Amino acid sequence: MLPTTEPRPPFDITRASHVSLTVRDLGASRDFYRDVIGLVVTEETRDAVYFRGLEEAVHHSLTLYRTDGAPLADRVGFRVATDEDIDLAEDHFRRTGVPHRRVEKPFQGPTLQFTDAVGTHMEFTSSMDVVDRRMQEFHEYRAGSPQRIDHFQVVTHDVQASTDFWAGLGMRLSEFTAKDGTDELWGTWMEVKGNTHDLVFTNGRGPRLHHFAYTVPDASSLIHAADVAGSLGFGEEIDRGPGRHGISNALFLYLRDPDQHRIELFTTHYQFIDLEAPPIRWEISNPRRSQVWGMPASRRWFFEASEFADEPVHEPLLSATPATLEDYLALH
Amino acid sequence: MLPTTEPRPPFDITRASHVSLTVRDLGASRDFYRDVIGLVVTEETRDAVYFRGLEEAVHHSLTLYRTDGAPLADRVGFRVATDEDIDLAEDHFRRTGVPHRRVEKPFQGPTLQFTDAVGTHMEFTSSMDVVDRRMQEFHEYRAGSPQRIDHFQVVTHDVQASTDFWAGLGMRLSEFTAKDGTDELWGTWMEVKGNTHDLVFTNGRGPRLHHFAYTVPDASSLIHAADVAGSLGFGEEIDRGPGRHGISNALFLYLRDPDQHRIELFTTHYQFIDLEAPPIRWEISNPRRSQVWGMPASRRWFFEASEFADEPVHEPLLSATPATLEDYLALH
Amino acid sequence: MLPTTEPRPPFDITRASHVSLTVRDLGASRDFYRDVIGLVVTEETRDAVYFRGLEEAVHHSLTLYRTDGAPLADRVGFRVATDEDIDLAEDHFRRTGVPHRRVEKPFQGPTLQFTDAVGTHMEFTSSMDVVDRRMQEFHEYRAGSPQRIDHFQVVTHDVQASTDFWAGLGMRLSEFTAKDGTDELWGTWMEVKGNTHDLVFTNGRGPRLHHFAYTVPDASSLIHAADVAGSLGFGEEIDRGPGRHGISNALFLYLRDPDQHRIELFTTHYQFIDLEAPPIRWEISNPRRSQVWGMPASRRWFFEASEFADEPVHEPLLSATPATLEDYLALH
Amino acid sequence: MLPTTEPRPPFDITRASHVSLTVRDLGASRDFYRDVIGLVVTEETRDAVYFRGLEEAVHHSLTLYRTDGAPLADRVGFRVATDEDIDLAEDHFRRTGVPHRRVEKPFQGPTLQFTDAVGTHMEFTSSMDVVDRRMQEFHEYRAGSPQRIDHFQVVTHDVQASTDFWAGLGMRLSEFTAKDGTDELWGTWMEVKGNTHDLVFTNGRGPRLHHFAYTVPDASSLIHAADVAGSLGFGEEIDRGPGRHGISNALFLYLRDPDQHRIELFTTHYQFIDLEAPPIRWEISNPRRSQVWGMPASRRWFFEASEFADEPVHEPLLSATPATLEDYLALH
Repeated sequence: MLPTTEPRPPFDITRASHVSLTVRDLGASRDFYRDVIGLVVTEETRDAVYFRGLEEAVHHSLTLYRTDGAPLADRVGFRVATDEDIDLAEDHFRRTGVPHRRVEKPFQGPTLQFTDAVGTHMEFTSSMDVVDRRMQEFHEYRAGSPQRIDHFQVVTHDVQASTDFWAGLGMRLSEFTAKDGTDELWGTWMEVKGNTHDLVFTNGRGPRLHHFAYTVPDASSLIHAADVAGSLGFGEEIDRGPGRHGISNALFLYLRDPDQHRIELFTTHYQFIDLEAPPIRWEISNPRRSQVWGMPASRRWFFEASEFADEPVHEPLLSATPATLEDYLALH
Repeated sequence: MLPTTEPRPPFDITRASHVSLTVRDLGASRDFYRDVIGLVVTEETRDAVYFRGLEEAVHHSLTLYRTDGAPLADRVGFRVATDEDIDLAEDHFRRTGVPHRRVEKPFQGPTLQFTDAVGTHMEFTSSMDVVDRRMQEFHEYRAGSPQRIDHFQVVTHDVQASTDFWAGLGMRLSEFTAKDGTDELWGTWMEVKGNTHDLVFTNGRGPRLHHFAYTVPDASSLIHAADVAGSLGFGEEIDRGPGRHGISNALFLYLRDPDQHRIELFTTHYQFIDLEAPPIRWEISNPRRSQVWGMPASRRWFFEASEFADEPVHEPLLSATPATLEDYLALH
Repeated sequence: MLPTTEPRPPFDITRASHVSLTVRDLGASRDFYRDVIGLVVTEETRDAVYFRGLEEAVHHSLTLYRTDGAPLADRVGFRVATDEDIDLAEDHFRRTGVPHRRVEKPFQGPTLQFTDAVGTHMEFTSSMDVVDRRMQEFHEYRAGSPQRIDHFQVVTHDVQASTDFWAGLGMRLSEFTAKDGTDELWGTWMEVKGNTHDLVFTNGRGPRLHHFAYTVPDASSLIHAADVAGSLGFGEEIDRGPGRHGISNALFLYLRDPDQHRIELFTTHYQFIDLEAPPIRWEISNPRRSQVWGMPASRRWFFEASEFADEPVHEPLLSATPATLEDYLALH
Repeated sequence: MLPTTEPRPPFDITRASHVSLTVRDLGASRDFYRDVIGLVVTEETRDAVYFRGLEEAVHHSLTLYRTDGAPLADRVGFRVATDEDIDLAEDHFRRTGVPHRRVEKPFQGPTLQFTDAVGTHMEFTSSMDVVDRRMQEFHEYRAGSPQRIDHFQVVTHDVQASTDFWAGLGMRLSEFTAKDGTDELWGTWMEVKGNTHDLVFTNGRGPRLHHFAYTVPDASSLIHAADVAGSLGFGEEIDRGPGRHGISNALFLYLRDPDQHRIELFTTHYQFIDLEAPPIRWEISNPRRSQVWGMPASRRWFFEASEFADEPVHEPLLSATPATLEDYLALH
């Protein structure tokens, strides 16, 4: 069932903003994101490394924390417009029973952590320390030359619930997949910043973070990222692409980091601002939703994702989906 | 003096949306925008041609009208979020003494025309007829493969007045040029859709429409547009570029149409959403504001622009500016 | 065992030049090569279509003939420098017992057909009708914008024999694969025009034509070709790529035509002229020879190829090779 | 008058190969060619720096020598096929009265220096020390990612004499400019390696080295080179381009090094092997020969070039040419 986007949301979410992960070897992971992906290292401490894209004026869009345990997804972050929106969010979560807490985080303004309707570990912040944009230091461009963080994809056992939750906070559906001839949602692409997606939910064992995505300038950057991955020994860590998604029209490349967290590099999607433009529906049986052309994704891409700390993973409510290997292979 | 952006504007402007021009030979101009630029023809009548970019789901972002007189800029169009915003805008203009009138325009929802503080002929609409996005019909891509309209640049005799007017409607300054060591604004880049600009004002004889701009997918598209212009006999109608603006970081190419209206093709600018990010100031004496590298712009680019019907053109208030030929030549 | 290139060959081969295929539906195949690949149609008759690349000044580099039978590879063509070289080749083949015959072919100069040491159906010609280069008609560029034919790859049961044959005619080895630690050749890349290859032989059931290849201007053209294949319904006919070969450093995309003949589009390889530069050896067990990064090739790419008319196909002499499915899957 | 290419030249020239220049600040020039252009430093001594392109397996294609005097062009180098060709060249020059001498040069095989018919300082060598190709070390790609040296352009007072000299050594004319309606050659593009040019002569004060050229992978590399030039402070040292030459179809960018020597980066030209393809003639009055589109070249590009040591510069024999400022400005 299509969600109803709240036209007057209780507070103002502005964009997908930052993500944090735990990793086992901080040095190896720093090298990966700096040299194979091309992110800028803003700051490095004994236990954390902070990165940003070349055009970003914020302190970080990716944070890695050292762990001695299993590597996990830590937090998925969004920006709200002002400090007042943090207060309004807190009020709203209190009223509606969403688990939340205020936290102090270095380099961030007021920050509110919470767990969404399907268990995803999230946080809002209203500002970050301002740093310089590096986009015109062209001699520092490396690998994919990632410009900015763009969106997150989360695997969930209940796409309907997660979609309703975020529509209630003002997010708008741009595209979706549904079981053929039904209104059973299998995947939803939701946005708040005026293009196709800030947050994606797809059906499967969840909650797990499937990937976070950075924009790159063009197809050449994407190919160069693949070439650099190859020459630095990460050629086998591309688990999908290059290819073109039917949904959102993204030209994509997916890579796995040393702890098997997944990052997508892609060329940016289309504008989605006008209210009269309806969301695009794709039947699950249509393979073009997933790719207009190209080699099939690997099994790893379909079945592996990063879990959240102490958050139980649930089997998907919609069991008969193409997310099974048999269906996948039959489709390709 | 920097303008104060109204945080609670009287109505909700969402994006630069559409432009109309008058031309002397409708067939020649249609061929230019379809074949040399690569726009999609949505509809053609005896007296008008309607175009859109490849990804646009709206009926038109560029309209050409046949004229027997001098070719002119007709209207510069923005979108507001809802029909209610049109009503609110009408109220606001009535209260504040802005000349305006409701009009019926084919393929558009409620439409309000008005003249801004410096005489620019503008209009708001809240919706358009929905048509299909052509962005995945890759075999129809031609020339620059323009995806969507992005922004307008207007030459004005009073940058301060025009900037204050639009800041009062909620537009936000992303970058600006000022006379060295003063707060005299020479050019302002203002945005409402979350990246560097929807509307630009620069100092000079005005009001005149300097150009309207479409995004293209990448540097290769820009070069292909130039190549196609060359092979179709319009190679001399490139009056600037390819080059890289310091301001906004755009990779640009400017072309003149058969009536000497100017269109910019460029690769899209950076995101500008977070409120803590300050606008970037450029001193007029810094040539990198205008281009990081590349051959100087032509005299035509600096001094020619499209006038509006029956709208007197004023000499600029700031007379001693680099917009004089001598300064320009001295700078390069 | 490495072949000995004849420094004073009996005649002067200059380049890979043209290929002919039989197809069942001439119209469908013409549409494919014109619209999905982007070749120029030079001429079309009831029973044949002649194509060339955008920069080619020759009448044809690809010819399709209508067939009512099974679609087959017809002839693989090379150029020799002058008419005298045709005479010299004829003498040479007579002396050395190579099956050959003079033929008259429209649009070609003196033409000599022959069968090489492993049964490949070949022909030499010394000239073709001159037509105009279309490379500066940029508005006619479509899909991959293929510029010129570049090389052929033939599957053979006896790589050593085929390699020795062509080295004896002056071809030079640029790269090769060999069974680890042995001098058993598994694949050979041979050239005559000063870059990595004009003719490739790989181990397998043969003789069969694996593919013919055209150069495209850049990575963006390759991606656009894939996009156009997708939008015209041929997205599933990409059976490998985009990817980067270790051997020759080609950025590649392989597509199957309506009769399952295979064409490669690629960005051009490196220069190989200086005699002191040794050929590059790759061990068969090194997966980087085949691709530096990217998704594995499909089974179709590994096992399917076009047979030649009335030419028996032999099982490969080197049976224990990675060209078996088990080895292939184990490698990826 | 068109030259007659010698079909059986006295020795075998294979390609444009290397160039040497004198510079005043070796460190600054090394930084320029390594960081702004992207060449690989093979070796550095107190008085010289040796560079090669990313795909080159030879020790050097560019050598810089420290000078305390005026910076000059030193030698323009070509490869011959074998040591025997050096002997044959020596015999030929002795017989025909061409000034020459054998020299020992580090990292090069037998080397023969000579002065051509118009005073250009040249040398042949038959081999160089073999080093590794870096083309698959994609993480080392910088700026334009130049792959290999390609050709030289020399300004000469007597285009006819220089062209005849080189045609007599086997070089072949691919394109040329001539004074309208006459057979007075104004510029000649000559090749030996199978594409449009290895050596270009244009009318003017000479002999002076106008530029040497490296190939880059694609249009994106060219733009990135310009961006890097901009961010490293060399944005004003682009004295022409990006643009598209009509002649040879090259997409070009010209930069000046710290001593004002000129390097061209360009995407590679078309194949020119078949003997039946005639050279392309361009009338001097046709501005498309010089550029299909784009901003006019600077005066610097037209009038500045590098002199050779102790070699007198002659006024051009053809005085009424477009190489005068008046004509140039009139053309644009």
